[in-house]
Amino acid sequence: MNSGLEGVVAAETKLSMVDGERGELVIGGYRVEELASWRFEDVVELLWGMDASPAHAKAAAGPLQLEPMDALRAGVASLMSDGDHRAARLLLWSCPAIVAAHWRRKQGLEPVDPRPDLGFAANYLWMLHGVEAHPEVVRGLETYLNTVVDHGLNASTFTARVIVSTGSDFVSAITGAIGALKGPLHGGAPGPALDMVFAIGDASRAEEVLRRKIEAGERLMGFGHRVYKVRDPRADVLAAAAERLFTRAGDMQLYELARAVERTALRLLEEHKPGRRLQTNVEFYTALLLHGIGLDTELFTPTFAVGRVAGWLAHCFEQRAVGKLIRPQSVYVGKLPDAVPV
Amino acid sequence: MNSGLEGVVAAETKLSMVDGERGELVIGGYRVEELASWRFEDVVELLWGMDASPAHAKAAAGPLQLEPMDALRAGVASLMSDGDHRAARLLLWSCPAIVAAHWRRKQGLEPVDPRPDLGFAANYLWMLHGVEAHPEVVRGLETYLNTVVDHGLNASTFTARVIVSTGSDFVSAITGAIGALKGPLHGGAPGPALDMVFAIGDASRAEEVLRRKIEAGERLMGFGHRVYKVRDPRADVLAAAAERLFTRAGDMQLYELARAVERTALRLLEEHKPGRRLQTNVEFYTALLLHGIGLDTELFTPTFAVGRVAGWLAHCFEQRAVGKLIRPQSVYVGKLPDAVPV
Repeated sequence: MNSGLEGVVAAETKLSMVDGERGELVIGGYRVEELASWRFEDVVELLWGMDASPAHAKAAAGPLQLEPMDALRAGVASLMSDGDHRAARLLLWSCPAIVAAHWRRKQGLEPVDPRPDLGFAANYLWMLHGVEAHPEVVRGLETYLNTVVDHGLNASTFTARVIVSTGSDFVSAITGAIGALKGPLHGGAPGPALDMVFAIGDASRAEEVLRRKIEAGERLMGFGHRVYKVRDPRADVLAAAAERLFTRAGDMQLYELARAVERTALRLLEEHKPGRRLQTNVEFYTALLLHGIGLDTELFTPTFAVGRVAGWLAHCFEQRAVGKLIRPQSVYVGKLPDAVPV
Repeated sequence: MNSGLEGVVAAETKLSMVDGERGELVIGGYRVEELASWRFEDVVELLWGMDASPAHAKAAAGPLQLEPMDALRAGVASLMSDGDHRAARLLLWSCPAIVAAHWRRKQGLEPVDPRPDLGFAANYLWMLHGVEAHPEVVRGLETYLNTVVDHGLNASTFTARVIVSTGSDFVSAITGAIGALKGPLHGGAPGPALDMVFAIGDASRAEEVLRRKIEAGERLMGFGHRVYKVRDPRADVLAAAAERLFTRAGDMQLYELARAVERTALRLLEEHKPGRRLQTNVEFYTALLLHGIGLDTELFTPTFAVGRVAGWLAHCFEQRAVGKLIRPQSVYVGKLPDAVPV
């Protein structure tokens, strides 16, 4: 019995290769460091092997009292599927519209329609804020979306593939994947890493606060990753993107604070857990970058979904081509009826 | 690489044991033949190990233009999760309300509120038809719901477990499972079996029509199952339930026709594919029974979901107790970047 399916290979993919030992992430044949600076639409077309041009996005999100990820799940669940390729484009372009519309309504603001003259990333910021974003901010978001677009067979991607494996539609698959991405064990909760930086507040307090946390046995949010034994390659890309963003269009003081916290944390971790090679993970720079872009912490996970949906959909296309039901077995460990011989 | 995860054991369960070689289905320690006559609520409480009393069901379904299963997916996706136990009761009692409300609105009728004095099965029929159902009809539906409540680790159940394994909520898990159940490879499409009976129309034509289908290499809908090598134990239970329903409150002529078609089909299959042991499967009697209950073919799969949601939720509780991420691996078979040594 392998309740986590660890080490079980459930799919062949041409989409991404995660090499945790080498600290390498290859997406569609390109290293993430190279592909990070592309237009997001071009990354999507690389993964889909076909056109990802704008669809007439639907922005009907779930009830206002829902959390942003639940509203995204509800909004996506009510889309109509109309053939795989059309459904993929509809899903890709609807996710940012659903997140933004729900967010604005929660703030008591009217939703803003997408603009056909803006690209994917610029449109998301436009629909969220109702003003055109600084080009450096758009570049920062686009870099983020590219780095998270695909990452092997994680639990949400696997969910999408299981659903498609039954012959079901892409709307159902993406709805399921959003539900899986919500889970705290999925990884990708960048909020807490930044909360720690805010709580420290001043570089001079970093050592004292962090030492206390480590000695109390607390996990430092933003450091370590279950897959990468060396530095997560996305961390470098996002660190560079954050530096560029903050230098050109942001709050350098916050940036310097975050870097100081990072340096102190790494030094203390090496001191207390020598040889564990704990590195700054992707959440740390994600939080910094998304904050610099002007996104509220509540929007971090939905924004992850807005990028990852392109990868999920690429896996849906791959799984459709496999055409085989994914159906492991359970073993019964319950009571047996009296008359059934064991 | 095992793209279907065949033979891989991914979960231990106390909920159900499917023995395809012996033709046995044990649910919560009871053979399906025994448990079929219980109240559905009692079966649910057996599987959950806790109270499944009515929750204040929400009946907000998806847009009217959606198909019934998509409307159920959308309606469930917009529910608010509030702790596992409360979410489970909300989901269990909301599914029939969502299916019924969408169905009635599609017919141009106002939705009907549930009645606190009616049980689960009687309430579903009440909300669908706006009249109290004959007790034999309620009994027939309840028998059906009991037989489909759980069936090992099928693809929709597995989907729910993968989603919960990330630490996500039960609403997300059930939404994903509904999306997986829709798929034609999942199994459980009872409509076509009945369509064949209707198309034959008269017992005297059965042999001619069926022989032509078999000789043309067509699959006879309603016969054979990928898991059961002998007779699916649910088929007997549903056959008895259909006979009882049609005898006491139904159209005996249709029933006799269906049985004649079945006898002829089994004889011809044995003649043409000797030794294959093809048996009447659960879809054949499901179709007959659900038709006798007065459900439109379009409601067959949503009604399956209305029963199976109890089993999905039981698996959600089990998976929550495991507390471990389900995350198999993919193997990368795409291009490598030039500078990465192979």
